[in-house]
Amino acid sequence: MKIGILTSGGDCPGINATIRGVGRTAILHYNMEVVGIRKGFSGLLENDYTIMDEVALSGLLYKGGTILGTSREKPFRKRLFSDEDLPRKLKQHYDDLGLDCLVAIGGNGTMKTAAKMRALGINVVGIPKTIDNDIWGTEVTFGFDTAVATATECIDRLHTTAESHRRVMVVEVMGHKAGWIALHSGMAGGAHVILIPELGYNPDKVIEAINRRMNKGKLHSIVVVAEGVKSLGGEKERPAFYLSKYIEEHSDLVCRETVLGHIQRGGSPTAADRNLATLLGGYATELISNRIFGVMVAVVNGQMTHLPLEEVAGKLKTVREDNPLVIQGKKLGISFGTED
Amino acid sequence: MKIGILTSGGDCPGINATIRGVGRTAILHYNMEVVGIRKGFSGLLENDYTIMDEVALSGLLYKGGTILGTSREKPFRKRLFSDEDLPRKLKQHYDDLGLDCLVAIGGNGTMKTAAKMRALGINVVGIPKTIDNDIWGTEVTFGFDTAVATATECIDRLHTTAESHRRVMVVEVMGHKAGWIALHSGMAGGAHVILIPELGYNPDKVIEAINRRMNKGKLHSIVVVAEGVKSLGGEKERPAFYLSKYIEEHSDLVCRETVLGHIQRGGSPTAADRNLATLLGGYATELISNRIFGVMVAVVNGQMTHLPLEEVAGKLKTVREDNPLVIQGKKLGISFGTED
Amino acid sequence: MKIGILTSGGDCPGINATIRGVGRTAILHYNMEVVGIRKGFSGLLENDYTIMDEVALSGLLYKGGTILGTSREKPFRKRLFSDEDLPRKLKQHYDDLGLDCLVAIGGNGTMKTAAKMRALGINVVGIPKTIDNDIWGTEVTFGFDTAVATATECIDRLHTTAESHRRVMVVEVMGHKAGWIALHSGMAGGAHVILIPELGYNPDKVIEAINRRMNKGKLHSIVVVAEGVKSLGGEKERPAFYLSKYIEEHSDLVCRETVLGHIQRGGSPTAADRNLATLLGGYATELISNRIFGVMVAVVNGQMTHLPLEEVAGKLKTVREDNPLVIQGKKLGISFGTED
Amino acid sequence: MKIGILTSGGDCPGINATIRGVGRTAILHYNMEVVGIRKGFSGLLENDYTIMDEVALSGLLYKGGTILGTSREKPFRKRLFSDEDLPRKLKQHYDDLGLDCLVAIGGNGTMKTAAKMRALGINVVGIPKTIDNDIWGTEVTFGFDTAVATATECIDRLHTTAESHRRVMVVEVMGHKAGWIALHSGMAGGAHVILIPELGYNPDKVIEAINRRMNKGKLHSIVVVAEGVKSLGGEKERPAFYLSKYIEEHSDLVCRETVLGHIQRGGSPTAADRNLATLLGGYATELISNRIFGVMVAVVNGQMTHLPLEEVAGKLKTVREDNPLVIQGKKLGISFGTED
Repeated sequence: MKIGILTSGGDCPGINATIRGVGRTAILHYNMEVVGIRKGFSGLLENDYTIMDEVALSGLLYKGGTILGTSREKPFRKRLFSDEDLPRKLKQHYDDLGLDCLVAIGGNGTMKTAAKMRALGINVVGIPKTIDNDIWGTEVTFGFDTAVATATECIDRLHTTAESHRRVMVVEVMGHKAGWIALHSGMAGGAHVILIPELGYNPDKVIEAINRRMNKGKLHSIVVVAEGVKSLGGEKERPAFYLSKYIEEHSDLVCRETVLGHIQRGGSPTAADRNLATLLGGYATELISNRIFGVMVAVVNGQMTHLPLEEVAGKLKTVREDNPLVIQGKKLGISFGTED
Repeated sequence: MKIGILTSGGDCPGINATIRGVGRTAILHYNMEVVGIRKGFSGLLENDYTIMDEVALSGLLYKGGTILGTSREKPFRKRLFSDEDLPRKLKQHYDDLGLDCLVAIGGNGTMKTAAKMRALGINVVGIPKTIDNDIWGTEVTFGFDTAVATATECIDRLHTTAESHRRVMVVEVMGHKAGWIALHSGMAGGAHVILIPELGYNPDKVIEAINRRMNKGKLHSIVVVAEGVKSLGGEKERPAFYLSKYIEEHSDLVCRETVLGHIQRGGSPTAADRNLATLLGGYATELISNRIFGVMVAVVNGQMTHLPLEEVAGKLKTVREDNPLVIQGKKLGISFGTED
Repeated sequence: MKIGILTSGGDCPGINATIRGVGRTAILHYNMEVVGIRKGFSGLLENDYTIMDEVALSGLLYKGGTILGTSREKPFRKRLFSDEDLPRKLKQHYDDLGLDCLVAIGGNGTMKTAAKMRALGINVVGIPKTIDNDIWGTEVTFGFDTAVATATECIDRLHTTAESHRRVMVVEVMGHKAGWIALHSGMAGGAHVILIPELGYNPDKVIEAINRRMNKGKLHSIVVVAEGVKSLGGEKERPAFYLSKYIEEHSDLVCRETVLGHIQRGGSPTAADRNLATLLGGYATELISNRIFGVMVAVVNGQMTHLPLEEVAGKLKTVREDNPLVIQGKKLGISFGTED
Repeated sequence: MKIGILTSGGDCPGINATIRGVGRTAILHYNMEVVGIRKGFSGLLENDYTIMDEVALSGLLYKGGTILGTSREKPFRKRLFSDEDLPRKLKQHYDDLGLDCLVAIGGNGTMKTAAKMRALGINVVGIPKTIDNDIWGTEVTFGFDTAVATATECIDRLHTTAESHRRVMVVEVMGHKAGWIALHSGMAGGAHVILIPELGYNPDKVIEAINRRMNKGKLHSIVVVAEGVKSLGGEKERPAFYLSKYIEEHSDLVCRETVLGHIQRGGSPTAADRNLATLLGGYATELISNRIFGVMVAVVNGQMTHLPLEEVAGKLKTVREDNPLVIQGKKLGISFGTED
């Protein structure tokens, strides 16, 4: 068999470990040929690819980023100024390459695209990948543990500054429309307030929570906000800047904001993410060897499994109100900005 | 209600986060009183304890070790030179303190002791704790992720030295009688040979595996060995030293051995371990509030649950041959020293 | 003798190690009494202090921030709405405490204040402290190595994202009006463009440098900018945002900006900063024991020494054009945005 | 001009940054040709080399180890079983390659060899490299800061275990015959006892020092020992094992030993080491462009300079009794095992 691998969407620690997991398992165990397609779906449209052997797959376990490059190309999106038939081109190049299956490593957008490729007669296996952990159908994605570890390390560092200056530090973390990174890094980093999009928040509740701490003699506070969060006001600004300004205007508190940004996407994956990436890569290859296509590999109840791409595509996994960390956080007195 | 907390057995990252999780949940949410018992079961025997309030439970999330101290005291062990009735003393001091329940944070030995305390009429809830991940009944223990992260970081560092000098690096990691740390850090660290007690190994197979790499032009190899591993010869030496000597005597390979030792037990817990510790601590407290005693909290299928202490005590969770990482490792060409 | 210690100005890794270095040397070796004054000069004005013994000075070597707290209070600044004589109050409280000397750990502002206190008859020894490394008279300040290490680690992480997406990453680092952090972290992090206030820059030169890389097939670039840098245009915006917008408006390049912010101030000091802090703290105490006052301790030609506070106060140490790292950077083809 | 680069002796973080510093400066600024010689002097004897261009010199700044490989080959050592004239062969291959100069990156042994090569008419510039910091003539070598950082991080981790179990942790660090790593990591890691070869030590003094701590209620201690240290007894064993056994036999203390080993050599260099390596590499190339040969580059009084190889060869830089860290350590009550 001959398989293609492409990586699409945002950068994420563990992609290279997944490429290695798929590629080495395919070559060494299943005796398949492996083609690396560059720059996501763009590479398939432009016939930009490379044959991968054992040597090309060396040294990837530790490495952040993706050696294949990535893009946000969506081949099924309607174009205004072109009537080129991109889906037909995809199928043509897939056939020209003689591929038996395409492994698409990507996030929600990639799974949608992958689902549509099935209808064209392209065999696809999707591997979920995002630091945001927001892919429906799988409990966890590689990259998430690393992003949480990085964010937590940064929050740890901000504690001493907040304490020394008796300030409110407002830290904005990534997560797209979901609050997973904020929830996990906020809880691990000992934040006093955690704001996530799923719950919304009232900035006055945040001020009240901080003032309750002040009244206990705790003169500094750490507020972790997800990038996707909005207050009741529905502001357009970055949440860290909006909240920081709001707090200073409506209280005597002094705030400083930090937007962690792209450092959460980079760097070497954690040990846990390396192993998750390796396992999912190997499992995807096993599925292909059994000619099981049109699925996304996933973790459910702590076990590897797979789901039809159609079932997954277009859905978002967000934090539920009965998430154990949310419930436990409230018991610990952490404010989610929603108290009544 | 009034609860006591003690930590027993070996040091492990996340114990303090657990103490905080239990203590703050008890005080802030369930309005309980909390007594910290020092030096494990010794402290209960010696009436060495401290009342813990919110302030005493601050700053613990990040901190390695245990602020309560620990010991390896086993109160039910037969003593040769004393006829003191330690179990009776335990019960007496437990009653004197007016405790409704004792939270015992510890490993396999602690769970055995905890099970025996029930018969004395002491209410106990056990929280599993070990870097070795070998506690039967729970999929994972806090401390394990941190130990694997530390060991993996060390293995990462050894790659460059091995490569620069074209050597075989033999790295011994902890794990007691189980191979969990070796398996997870070996896979995450890109080891070429991984030896775990559950599978045993033949040192000649290790040499063959390394020579296969040499023949492909790969002049260095990383061998990760669990401290509990034995070769077919049943040697008494430390496995790293035994294997290293064996390889040098039976081949032209040049070896260097590294025993990682206690650094695997120390340091700040990873974000994942902090959250696991917090959740298990909170869950244990919830059980107590519902007067559910005589159980160990556990993670099964990715969810928190609890099991009778009797069911758990005295059993060891080891790596099975059908462990997904073992299977995947073999597909990647990693040697487990058992090839036939 | 009896000495007071205060920490003033911005947070900086290594302050606690310095407090320990001064305090333990004073108590254990010189048999002095040690008073810790809280919140910088505010604490001296408000008589907010604590007696420090060996126990209070434990566990400080590793700890970020300052256990004494800090403030930006400048007691000699003219007040508009108060005719309170703050300098007289300072002197009064210093005498009331019976201090023989005040150790002022701080940055440029603190050294200015310290110099003025001499005229009031207060004995002062200054210990320079800033992550910005911009204190005149000393080659290096503790906190700088840690800030550079943190910034470099972040830049390392951004490489993979930049590479995977073929982007220009613009990273803004701290440094106040000086370019030290940008220069050292930019060189250590393998930046392709480094912009520092001392040299100014022309944004068109930055675009040219990046395009030269593109023409060599290097499709990503890392630009490190000091927070104090201004282009020829003299803009008011944050330099990262200004430059990023400028590049996108004047080229086809795609940029992403990251402002590292307060994480550079926090966390545990590096080993080098711990030792520097310990040595300077010990040396300051030795000077006091010899009744040498009115000086700032410093590192000159790699050796500890001291300078009159008057000589130091009000001067800034900035990066010179003949700095070896600047010269070497140019030889390596790194752009400083000033090419002609 | 055409230059060769080789790396010889033990692995050390920063070698690759140095190769990059030399190579890129040579190619981009001085328009030289660069030949990379593999496996140290062995490569020159075996004509094993590679032409290095800008691409081959990419991505090296961060990378531990040496991409050229290394060996401990000493071409001027007398051989028992061969009358091959290795020095003549060296000279022959140097001439065949048409080199104008050889850059030898190595430790004390390498500098000795380099000095002897001059007599053969080979132009050499030496760049000192060792984690041990024991090269005479330079204040500091790259690799040292990284090794100290790694060792310090490990010592930090051991504190919590020592504390939780009320134990004496004996940590053995590298350093060959010198105590630099032990001194710097011991001081930075908050060790209570530091033992270095230059001072020797009396194990009874160590026990006394630990007991003094016990009497103050401090129930754990950290002892850092250099691998080269010997007690008065002149034992043959590893110092950590010897001391640990001695303490347990002559006191009631419980010890655990940790030998840090090769992890101190590996990993990515610190920011400070990367910059030092880059500067020394650039400076060596500048010397070559000025036809200054037969020298070792060095740091003296914090400035880059160079010294005749003859002056350097065969001498060792060890810790002096008046080292500021030793003096300051004693003032802080740290034991060096030599008290009288």
